[in-house]
Amino acid sequence: MKIGDQPALLLIDIQKGMNNTEYYGGHRNNPKAEEQAAKILSYWRAHQLPVIHIKHNGTPPSPLSKDTPGNDFMEIVQPIKGEPIFEKEVNSAFIGTDLDAFLKKKGIMRLVLVGLTTAHCISSTARMAGNFGYDTYIISDATATFNTLGIDGQAYEAALVHTICLATLRNEFATILDTESLLDLL
Amino acid sequence: MKIGDQPALLLIDIQKGMNNTEYYGGHRNNPKAEEQAAKILSYWRAHQLPVIHIKHNGTPPSPLSKDTPGNDFMEIVQPIKGEPIFEKEVNSAFIGTDLDAFLKKKGIMRLVLVGLTTAHCISSTARMAGNFGYDTYIISDATATFNTLGIDGQAYEAALVHTICLATLRNEFATILDTESLLDLL
Repeated sequence: MKIGDQPALLLIDIQKGMNNTEYYGGHRNNPKAEEQAAKILSYWRAHQLPVIHIKHNGTPPSPLSKDTPGNDFMEIVQPIKGEPIFEKEVNSAFIGTDLDAFLKKKGIMRLVLVGLTTAHCISSTARMAGNFGYDTYIISDATATFNTLGIDGQAYEAALVHTICLATLRNEFATILDTESLLDLL
Repeated sequence: MKIGDQPALLLIDIQKGMNNTEYYGGHRNNPKAEEQAAKILSYWRAHQLPVIHIKHNGTPPSPLSKDTPGNDFMEIVQPIKGEPIFEKEVNSAFIGTDLDAFLKKKGIMRLVLVGLTTAHCISSTARMAGNFGYDTYIISDATATFNTLGIDGQAYEAALVHTICLATLRNEFATILDTESLLDLL
């Protein structure tokens, strides 16, 4: 990756409602994912690279619902002037939004994904990004997911779900890096 | 589900090249997935429900590549006259195809997914189907996946990858049923 390639940082669903761990499965991995995302965000801003915020307004009602405090972005990644925000109602940031057209218009072909959750919105967005032809990166320690119930009723540990989601995405849809490797590469 | 709701059966990437287990990871779960898919296909044909075949022509070269024997559908699910075939070059059956427009034109809003692989094309198609608003069903014993390498180089067992993929899809994107439950419901 070269800075000249203008990789866009997509901060996905880093909203206050995600702190409702009980609602989302009782336990989450990577408790410092938001701090890592904020660290990457600082780098992007310092180097005037494109930053894009994605906000989830999904229905049915959830801790992220529109017009509730949980819908707000976490303080640590609050957008600043000039940073576009795309609001979505489903998991993929490409469905029901103008994100793809916006990126094409800007000539952006390389995406770096951070945020929540690996199992839902990160995976859905990464799969579409990869299939659309974007050179897609997911930052393993700046993403996180919750414990997840299987069809047999068994609870799968967040860390295992996260790891297996990334395993199914690597090579096929995205390159997986941690924050340190990403920043070394830039 | 009611037969009157015209659920469409999507048979995804059930192509001969998928028999190259060595290429795809060395081991697969649900060895009878194709038989289950064929059983469901028989039911769909007997009840004149819509059947749609999806074929993967992906690049780079793989055991499924176009103009190779592996590109052909397996004999057990060979299309018959009148059954549409959508050819795709990426994982999601909705990207680079007219599938969404076709379904909308036909008034089909309910999809039943079977085929290969749970980790790649089934998950990608199911996530988009769910996010597009289709009432989406994945048949757990008529889908299968291969052992998958993690970012740490560890090989995750196909059955575990399959189970966790379905866990991440259930409730959020799709309803997971086995063949017997599906046929009981129709």
